[in-house]
Amino acid sequence: MSYQQLEKTFYRLAQLDHASAMLGWDQQVMMPPKGNDARGRAMAELSVIATEILQQDSLSDLFDAAEDDKLSLETWQQGNLREMTRAWKTAVAVPGELIEAEVMATNECQHAWRSYRSSNNWLDFQPLLEKVFDLSREKAQALNTALADEQGYQNDYDALLDLFDPGTRLAKVDTFFNQLKTVLPDLQNRIMARQQRLSAPLLPSQPVPRLTQLALSRDIMSVLGFDFEAGRLDETLHPFSGGVSDDSRITSRIDENNVLESIMATIHETGHSRYETGLNRDWRFKPVGHSMGMSIHESQSLFFEMQMARSKAFVDAIQPMVSKHLGTDPAFNAENLHSIYTQVQPSLIRVNADEVTYPLHVILRYEIERDVILGRTTVADIPERWDEAMLKYLGLDTRGNYQDGPMQDIHWPSGAIGYFPSYTLGAMNAAQLHHAVVQAIPHAADLVGRLELEPIFNWLAVNIWQKGCLLSTDELMREATGEALQAHYFIDHLRSRYL
Amino acid sequence: MSYQQLEKTFYRLAQLDHASAMLGWDQQVMMPPKGNDARGRAMAELSVIATEILQQDSLSDLFDAAEDDKLSLETWQQGNLREMTRAWKTAVAVPGELIEAEVMATNECQHAWRSYRSSNNWLDFQPLLEKVFDLSREKAQALNTALADEQGYQNDYDALLDLFDPGTRLAKVDTFFNQLKTVLPDLQNRIMARQQRLSAPLLPSQPVPRLTQLALSRDIMSVLGFDFEAGRLDETLHPFSGGVSDDSRITSRIDENNVLESIMATIHETGHSRYETGLNRDWRFKPVGHSMGMSIHESQSLFFEMQMARSKAFVDAIQPMVSKHLGTDPAFNAENLHSIYTQVQPSLIRVNADEVTYPLHVILRYEIERDVILGRTTVADIPERWDEAMLKYLGLDTRGNYQDGPMQDIHWPSGAIGYFPSYTLGAMNAAQLHHAVVQAIPHAADLVGRLELEPIFNWLAVNIWQKGCLLSTDELMREATGEALQAHYFIDHLRSRYL
Repeated sequence: MSYQQLEKTFYRLAQLDHASAMLGWDQQVMMPPKGNDARGRAMAELSVIATEILQQDSLSDLFDAAEDDKLSLETWQQGNLREMTRAWKTAVAVPGELIEAEVMATNECQHAWRSYRSSNNWLDFQPLLEKVFDLSREKAQALNTALADEQGYQNDYDALLDLFDPGTRLAKVDTFFNQLKTVLPDLQNRIMARQQRLSAPLLPSQPVPRLTQLALSRDIMSVLGFDFEAGRLDETLHPFSGGVSDDSRITSRIDENNVLESIMATIHETGHSRYETGLNRDWRFKPVGHSMGMSIHESQSLFFEMQMARSKAFVDAIQPMVSKHLGTDPAFNAENLHSIYTQVQPSLIRVNADEVTYPLHVILRYEIERDVILGRTTVADIPERWDEAMLKYLGLDTRGNYQDGPMQDIHWPSGAIGYFPSYTLGAMNAAQLHHAVVQAIPHAADLVGRLELEPIFNWLAVNIWQKGCLLSTDELMREATGEALQAHYFIDHLRSRYL
Repeated sequence: MSYQQLEKTFYRLAQLDHASAMLGWDQQVMMPPKGNDARGRAMAELSVIATEILQQDSLSDLFDAAEDDKLSLETWQQGNLREMTRAWKTAVAVPGELIEAEVMATNECQHAWRSYRSSNNWLDFQPLLEKVFDLSREKAQALNTALADEQGYQNDYDALLDLFDPGTRLAKVDTFFNQLKTVLPDLQNRIMARQQRLSAPLLPSQPVPRLTQLALSRDIMSVLGFDFEAGRLDETLHPFSGGVSDDSRITSRIDENNVLESIMATIHETGHSRYETGLNRDWRFKPVGHSMGMSIHESQSLFFEMQMARSKAFVDAIQPMVSKHLGTDPAFNAENLHSIYTQVQPSLIRVNADEVTYPLHVILRYEIERDVILGRTTVADIPERWDEAMLKYLGLDTRGNYQDGPMQDIHWPSGAIGYFPSYTLGAMNAAQLHHAVVQAIPHAADLVGRLELEPIFNWLAVNIWQKGCLLSTDELMREATGEALQAHYFIDHLRSRYL
């Protein structure tokens, strides 16, 4: 009975989440600029309402009673109770005013970011970002104080990691990232030396109109099983996947001079979307039915983009579709396309980075945000830290170039601090999952070559999508692949593709 | 103190309204079809949350205390207290489950309407509409029971009228509509006889592409003072004005074979939008700062569309803009355009009707919905009642043509029962307001001819927009025009334009 009452409370929260998700999508895709103040207020208020619901005094007794009756519940209900409890304890730990302040600050910073980024204006941006980091730190401290014993946090940053990727801790990230830092620079040099011996791929000779790019993107999305009756593709500066599981809203960045980027951005977001829309409908509006943390979410987008779409088999397979939309420019033949899609080259922009250098972009951001949260550095020092790390990891000089430096990502302005590590953990999970797929479906590459992707999607549906967050990330990976995350699958994948 | 606490509560409600307004806009403009079930649930839950806020036990004491302290409040605050009290008493009168059921039913009916209308399928539509009318009746009864003494309702339908246009009552509508029914049929015949003696206007010879129509619409909106930094124009089957005062979302119906309709639809919705965006910003998020009821709202759209845009001066003035987008087809010269825009011809579709026959469409719908709510007829009998009235009022045979008959409007499917009379009361208010504008600004027609519309918009801003709902409709009209609504201004306007 108390369990059912809790389910009802979380049904209401799911509806508030729906509203916030759609208002957030609209804000980035449709909203005119002067609408931002009112939108910020509305979204902040929805957050506060959700928090107040979770902070009602009556919930404590309900959770106690539900916990006592736990053995009468089915397994998935026990998982649901665990997830409800996690959400409740997290909400109770952070005061409503702090959440409201954070929504307002991130809304303001995110909005300002759009114009300051294009004018390379770090100075006016910095105080807004400081406000966001200050509030994030305050939140991290509150969470760490309240939940350290229960969740085993060793520091404030652990509490932020846990918000985006439950179970991930600084110590684990450090371990994995140190492994990568040991291997990647050397690997990168060997790959670049090898690629220098080959002839450079041709680049497209003409810009491609926006509508043509969108039409091609939609065709590829259909091949990837995206249901346009239950979702949309639109354009934004920074691609994202939003909406709700019944109504998936993905966006792509369309640059007329870079059609190849928009194709991959679309495929990446389609991976996120398939995960969300493939969740177990019996658990709709229930926390156990949510997608897992971001390192699993990102594993799905990167499975689509990196493991599948940049394979030779996939590039060959979509070539007719590409020709149909983009014409006969030799840059778009399969051989050349695959060569472009597997070029390794250090560059300034994370979202354009290849999969070999990408982890270094992530490690750089991780080290900076970790240190700001732990008080080892300040927001004012970010540009200097950035420049140093870019030089050290990627050999690039970024001094004075804020727009392609610390202002390039929407994550910090939007308060997503503790998020970046998930990209690389996701790439590692994707490699390990792909290895498991090939074990389970030995002719997977042939299927990809014929664009008969259903068996692969079914494997993902059964092993990942349908499980919601019934299991922990470690358990999920163990059930799907036989072991918890290991770095070597990712490194093996890079070696096998690029050397 | 209690007043300030109430303001805080209503601030929260305003944020929930923002969310509902934007989710409603998205549902009609952007949402893919399979998103509808989840959207309906989210919107229903937001309604229930808002109702629960208004139904909190603690509000009763706050309203009592605020009422006791009333004399310490400024005039506008007293108006705000009155509007908060009205909203509270209305909400307390209707059970939360009934509101939730109504949101779900209207969502389902409205969604089904889109496909059933195009397949002319009344039979499958009827039970869904019955559900909507049943719930609306139930709501009307609850409101009438609770508020009859205070608001002076004489019947259940009065309670529905009051929701859309506070102060309007069945007896008043009957009086005005009987005046119109006495005058309009004869007037219509005389106008048509006169028009038959003139040569018929030319119709455009070519379809006009959607994007061309949208570009022309946007140029005209700019002339009308629409701020595209604070709003958008999109396309829907049924034009509407939505969003919030900082972020106005209007839509137009674009038919490639009927560019002239889309222009006027856009101008009409721009009138609604200017009203909303012209509200007093000091009263933002406060009930006293809301727009008035629908008969004043519609007076603004009809002031723009009927009083201003169909005048010879306006049509002459926008002719260069029309030529620029639509080319040199002689149908688009000013003389011919004005002739098209003032043709009087009975037709099936309300939204396409001229301003002379339009009131008869409204009277027909009013009489039907009034009688369903009062139990004098049933939803099953609507098609028959419709056919009879169309024959009697407009001389048209509509038997079997449901899609251009009782299924043509979104109002009933969306639960807007009691709304239709506002269209014609709005047309009457618009005529009376226009008369007052010409008294105040004798060279108004010259200004229109030069598209120097600011003085006219300023008059509307000062006399209508900025006043929010501080006054009753009668007081507002008296302050603006010297007297409460009179039918003769509208009838005089028709005589002077058409005879």
